[in-house]
Amino acid sequence: MSDMTARFAEIVGEHNLLTGDAIPEDYAHDEVLTTAPQKPAYVAKPTTAEDVSQLLRAATEHKVPVTARGSGSGLSGAAIPRRDGLVISFERMNAVLEVDTTNQVAVVQPGVTLTDLDAATADTGLRYMVYPGELSSSVGGNVGTNAGGMRAVKYGIARHNVLGLQAVLPTGEIFRTGGKIAKVSTGYDLTQLIVGSEGTLALATEVIVKLHPCLDHSATVLAPFADFDQVMRAVPKVLASGLGPYILEYIDNMTMAALIHTQNLELGIPDTIRDSCQAYLVVALENRTENRLGEDVERAGELVVELGAVDAYVLEGASARKLIEAREKAFWTAKAIGADDIIDTVVPRSAMPKFLAAARDLAMAAGGAAAGCGHAGDGNVHLAILCKDPEKRHQLMTDIFALAMELGGAISGEHGLGRAKTPYFLELEDPVKVDLMRRIKQSFDPAGILNPDVLFAAGDA
Amino acid sequence: MSDMTARFAEIVGEHNLLTGDAIPEDYAHDEVLTTAPQKPAYVAKPTTAEDVSQLLRAATEHKVPVTARGSGSGLSGAAIPRRDGLVISFERMNAVLEVDTTNQVAVVQPGVTLTDLDAATADTGLRYMVYPGELSSSVGGNVGTNAGGMRAVKYGIARHNVLGLQAVLPTGEIFRTGGKIAKVSTGYDLTQLIVGSEGTLALATEVIVKLHPCLDHSATVLAPFADFDQVMRAVPKVLASGLGPYILEYIDNMTMAALIHTQNLELGIPDTIRDSCQAYLVVALENRTENRLGEDVERAGELVVELGAVDAYVLEGASARKLIEAREKAFWTAKAIGADDIIDTVVPRSAMPKFLAAARDLAMAAGGAAAGCGHAGDGNVHLAILCKDPEKRHQLMTDIFALAMELGGAISGEHGLGRAKTPYFLELEDPVKVDLMRRIKQSFDPAGILNPDVLFAAGDA
Repeated sequence: MSDMTARFAEIVGEHNLLTGDAIPEDYAHDEVLTTAPQKPAYVAKPTTAEDVSQLLRAATEHKVPVTARGSGSGLSGAAIPRRDGLVISFERMNAVLEVDTTNQVAVVQPGVTLTDLDAATADTGLRYMVYPGELSSSVGGNVGTNAGGMRAVKYGIARHNVLGLQAVLPTGEIFRTGGKIAKVSTGYDLTQLIVGSEGTLALATEVIVKLHPCLDHSATVLAPFADFDQVMRAVPKVLASGLGPYILEYIDNMTMAALIHTQNLELGIPDTIRDSCQAYLVVALENRTENRLGEDVERAGELVVELGAVDAYVLEGASARKLIEAREKAFWTAKAIGADDIIDTVVPRSAMPKFLAAARDLAMAAGGAAAGCGHAGDGNVHLAILCKDPEKRHQLMTDIFALAMELGGAISGEHGLGRAKTPYFLELEDPVKVDLMRRIKQSFDPAGILNPDVLFAAGDA
Repeated sequence: MSDMTARFAEIVGEHNLLTGDAIPEDYAHDEVLTTAPQKPAYVAKPTTAEDVSQLLRAATEHKVPVTARGSGSGLSGAAIPRRDGLVISFERMNAVLEVDTTNQVAVVQPGVTLTDLDAATADTGLRYMVYPGELSSSVGGNVGTNAGGMRAVKYGIARHNVLGLQAVLPTGEIFRTGGKIAKVSTGYDLTQLIVGSEGTLALATEVIVKLHPCLDHSATVLAPFADFDQVMRAVPKVLASGLGPYILEYIDNMTMAALIHTQNLELGIPDTIRDSCQAYLVVALENRTENRLGEDVERAGELVVELGAVDAYVLEGASARKLIEAREKAFWTAKAIGADDIIDTVVPRSAMPKFLAAARDLAMAAGGAAAGCGHAGDGNVHLAILCKDPEKRHQLMTDIFALAMELGGAISGEHGLGRAKTPYFLELEDPVKVDLMRRIKQSFDPAGILNPDVLFAAGDA
């Protein structure tokens, strides 16, 4: 047993430390399509913040690279470790510590999955509303990537729903940020700095998340449009209407066909309409009374038709759920149809038509294709990229990201950069900002042990 | 003319640089009650980001302390400069650059007041919803303090409504963060780090703020309660009801008496009820139809009575507006009745009864008094502190802040620390966090020129 193995084993116990061949393949990857899996030298499964502190202190002392792991459902390779590195897996820190209905928060350990958290709050009429589409994802992972998802248009992204943290610096100090409070103006907001930092600054060992009241009644309006631009022009009108949709998605015809086919969807839309439509708008509404929901659904139906929809289909209960579930699984559909990479770029809503048209043209010019769906209300575009040649694909991705940035957007809206998108970030981002972020990184992580291949060039920070 | 004067004058033009006796008294202070005014050596009035960049570059080179100034309506002394320092006043950078209804954002210069921004968006049906109660405050000041206010319970605080910045580092680099986008997961969130940093990290020269659709119909329910704890216990129930109030305030009886007296309020509440009540809950509702608003108001009235209110008074139009305006002016009322200091502490909602009872006891034990109102939905407590003796008062404030922190809260919910609250922060905050914040500060501001007396000890960072 090496010295480092002995040290880590002493901290978490031998049963909770894996090394060498005993490490299952799972710890070598997340769900990213492009970055090669890589087994680490060690996997430690701490149970307390104190364990995490000691692991990090030892890692800093011996310059062992550390990668945090939640459920491993990330899509950018932020959970792929270094070969000589330590994975800190939060699978045993998976307790819901408290559901506090007065303050409308839950206090959880980072390894808690959304399924478990939903179960813990089910009886309270309250819910954690971040909904990245993968219920096996962990709250710690939501913190790391600043997860978004379909409900963000009403309930905000992880950043808006994480009120406080207990976190551990790579040098071992344990500290608390924020709290069961909705606002604070007392020094720099460390919570917000750690949210979205992809395990490069500090590791969260406890998360205080906001819970929202559940509204009892919901329905979904599905609106096919002949013209893609009309969908995009409809979005701000729907948002300005005061109807307050909690989901506002678009799905292009190619993606809808794939969803219908792979998920066996039955939406009741005649073939003639499906064949003549470029895209669909999905408007999900909720209300505290059935009566008001009915009125809102009617108004939404009228509104989308006024805005150019060919028709408006009201989906209730099971069929609405099936459509939303199918939309959630868009990544798996993209994977199933052989996507070579995925993009989750965000652009200003007004730039979506231009961005999508240009991205499709770029893909076609590269001999490939780009199709997808996305969070229309947020300008968050999910594209499956089909382009086999790695060099051409890299150039295509670079061109698409550069275009998004030129239009006032950013490379990733909700997946994070991870190992997969970091090279594009370093190539395209303003060096003033990258340098500033590198200095911020150093102020947390002087030895540069935390996820060293993410956000910065390997060995760089 | 000194070398420094010449340098600054060259950048902004002689007409836009004030020095010595030509500097009006106004630039020596904001609205803080306790920190002594202090005239700076220079006041510069830039008109472009390039001006700001050159000013900061020169200041860094010559180690001139710099204090940013918006409207000077802050309550913590963050705009009080150093005697040998430079004030960068954003009064000439006060343009609304763009109102973008498709993306539902406005792009403004930091010196824009809320009055001007509201005027610019008035015809669009959209509005910037941060409402710190002082319409002469500037958007730049909102960014600096992470302003909150009454509407935060529904629309969030400045942090949630600032989507992007153009900002200038003290070393002169101009950069952009965020954008006309609702989400981003592409590196550290520099926007969120600068929001609430009170002019200590970088100076914003452009701000992209979120606009929300205005709902046409609103009314206010005023509910007197015999018992203070009942008010506090009612708050989470009102929030869980799905009624979605956009204002949810409490006002204690002493403060209500002062508001009624100083603002000539006529609320139609019989004297017998006023005399027997410890506190009031203010529930403001809005809806897109008059019909629904009527239903909601009725439901809210029933609900507060179920929760223990003595009665429920529905205020519409002018009387509702007068009450909200009077509440906005609570600071001026506190000042008028001779408050010696003010507190804007935040605690978990559930801790408000305990906190308020203990704070009143502490004040009484110090021979003083504490009374107030606050953002009940946010746990944000505004207290006027009456205690003439400076030493006793310092101890009382320290004790109250320590109590708030013990209960899981923080010193300031929305005013910021400024010069006035920084000593308490340094005394009470976890040194691990203060050290981390100091390192973050250094990563932005290596020469330590930006507001050196705020957040850190003078000459310390």
